Amino acid sequence: MTDFTSYSRLREFCLDLPPGNHAASALVAAREAVLTKPPRSLGRLEDLSAWLAHWQGSSPPRLQRVEILVFAGNHGVAGQGVSAFPVEVTAQMVANFAAGGAAINQLARAAGADLRVIPLALDKPTADFTGGPAMSEEEFLAAVSTGYQAVTPECDLLCVGEMGIGNTTAAAAIAAALFGGGATRWAGRGTGVDDEGLARKRDVIDRALRRHRGLIQDPLSVAAALGGRELAAIFGAVLAARRLPIPVLLDGFVCTAAVAPLFKLRTDTLAHALAGHVSAEAGHRMLLDELKLKPIVDLDMRLGEASGAALAVLIVRAALACHTGMATFAEAGVSDKPADESAQEPKAAG
Amino acid sequence: MTDFTSYSRLREFCLDLPPGNHAASALVAAREAVLTKPPRSLGRLEDLSAWLAHWQGSSPPRLQRVEILVFAGNHGVAGQGVSAFPVEVTAQMVANFAAGGAAINQLARAAGADLRVIPLALDKPTADFTGGPAMSEEEFLAAVSTGYQAVTPECDLLCVGEMGIGNTTAAAAIAAALFGGGATRWAGRGTGVDDEGLARKRDVIDRALRRHRGLIQDPLSVAAALGGRELAAIFGAVLAARRLPIPVLLDGFVCTAAVAPLFKLRTDTLAHALAGHVSAEAGHRMLLDELKLKPIVDLDMRLGEASGAALAVLIVRAALACHTGMATFAEAGVSDKPADESAQEPKAAG
Repeated sequence: MTDFTSYSRLREFCLDLPPGNHAASALVAAREAVLTKPPRSLGRLEDLSAWLAHWQGSSPPRLQRVEILVFAGNHGVAGQGVSAFPVEVTAQMVANFAAGGAAINQLARAAGADLRVIPLALDKPTADFTGGPAMSEEEFLAAVSTGYQAVTPECDLLCVGEMGIGNTTAAAAIAAALFGGGATRWAGRGTGVDDEGLARKRDVIDRALRRHRGLIQDPLSVAAALGGRELAAIFGAVLAARRLPIPVLLDGFVCTAAVAPLFKLRTDTLAHALAGHVSAEAGHRMLLDELKLKPIVDLDMRLGEASGAALAVLIVRAALACHTGMATFAEAGVSDKPADESAQEPKAAG
Repeated sequence: MTDFTSYSRLREFCLDLPPGNHAASALVAAREAVLTKPPRSLGRLEDLSAWLAHWQGSSPPRLQRVEILVFAGNHGVAGQGVSAFPVEVTAQMVANFAAGGAAINQLARAAGADLRVIPLALDKPTADFTGGPAMSEEEFLAAVSTGYQAVTPECDLLCVGEMGIGNTTAAAAIAAALFGGGATRWAGRGTGVDDEGLARKRDVIDRALRRHRGLIQDPLSVAAALGGRELAAIFGAVLAARRLPIPVLLDGFVCTAAVAPLFKLRTDTLAHALAGHVSAEAGHRMLLDELKLKPIVDLDMRLGEASGAALAVLIVRAALACHTGMATFAEAGVSDKPADESAQEPKAAG
């Protein structure tokens, strides 16, 4: 049922999307207005609580079950020397995730989130996309299905992230294909390539764009030809969350590029998603602008692994703690009258 | 011993400041460099761990005891209709803090921080500074001492914040006196005054600046003439933390204005302090620029109460969790070799 057998079947899924729950978010906004603080003084925290309610369809919203899904994949294009690290590091980091030694393990614990790491055929890298499509339609759809099926309906908030040596090259190629501007606009240093490596990376991306220029009208073909399995799985997971619906926090540049084809298919496919952070990777801020996403935190991070999304969970939890825990003006006996009205009534409103 | 009997005694305290511990922050940086992530990929999180170590004088740093001090004061200038709320709200909110119903109660719990609220003579507002100094030298120094003495040496990280109807007017007046530009540059809507209220507020500030123009060469006189007791207490607490030393997270516009006189006395008096957030209050971003402070979070908040500082604690805790909990490359068996070197050695570094 969630196995996608063709692009057209997948496109149908992208066009059958439930609305958010306006009644739930309106209830949150109404409560925020009577909590003991100047109206709107909690700023984006108020918006975050309303967003949770809107996509959970309940007021008050809940954060009992926060899940972080990290998808890992390997990339044929890594053989072209586009990364500062060898491809073995993808599998080594998956082992590090399992052992609890990576940044995301610490951040997931801090965020009170369950972490699941899903490696996708690490011993079978995608094809080098300078020579042909990274994935066939079948391979792409299989990875999308894996991501789609990884999302559980009981989840209150989903974070998505990735690990894959070479995948900022894939992400930049997707961004360039969908939004134009070529490698100069989108390629960054990823894990930290030097000037020579960056030049190689740009050349690889521009060659791939020329080779696949016939596909750029179709976002799904772009995702298959220039992406990777972990990007396809993120695409699937975020689509599943949109259909359940469940609110989603995106991570950095690769994660955002992975869902950009969804936005191109139909912009409101990402209506349930917020950007957990803006990464220091060169293209991320521009890509967020293209997708009309405003990041929650901005801390010069560029690690991936859902690390930026996990940090944003801390902020979302704080928002909900204020929303559910604060007293109203009436409960606390704090005056919510304007200063001049109150001056006419000696006793403050109870 | 920490009772300040004169401005000159207080100035002496500001000139006798210990350095941070470079050895401790260097140890943190050295460990960050071998943790399983690309170098510097945790961005500001890495800086936050080093900053904690630098001002705690220990590596690894600790966050056993995080304290939030909220000082409350009342302002004679509030009688001029510069706030959207009546002055009674200061005491009502102090009661709300005690009952656990305010935003800062929820945020302190989320941050694992102890909250202490210290009201300063709420039944005796400062003088209206359009008619004379808000505080005498004696009153100012007493409030500074209260703040100074509120800081405990056992504290690992101190957050400071405030509550006081009318205090964004005082803060804007201090900022204008110290950095120029008049009320137009510094006055914002505070708790939410309308256009008429904002015009009154600007007029009040510009009249105060004219009246006290003889004092603006002396930061302490500015703080006494245009400030308030809660601002003076923040000044004292941040000075105490600098001398112990203890790292400090500042809150929003009022809090930053409260410590701006310290910066004017001697810039490295704030070397131990970071801006927890940038507020939506008009002047805050400019004031942070003047003090060379870069905020940790930016969420359009404008509540005060140390709410922005408390949110930043969540980020600092996450930074420290990564620093202490992550595996090194060697421990995890992850290759930290550049891709091309590794290509020459088939086996990844263990």
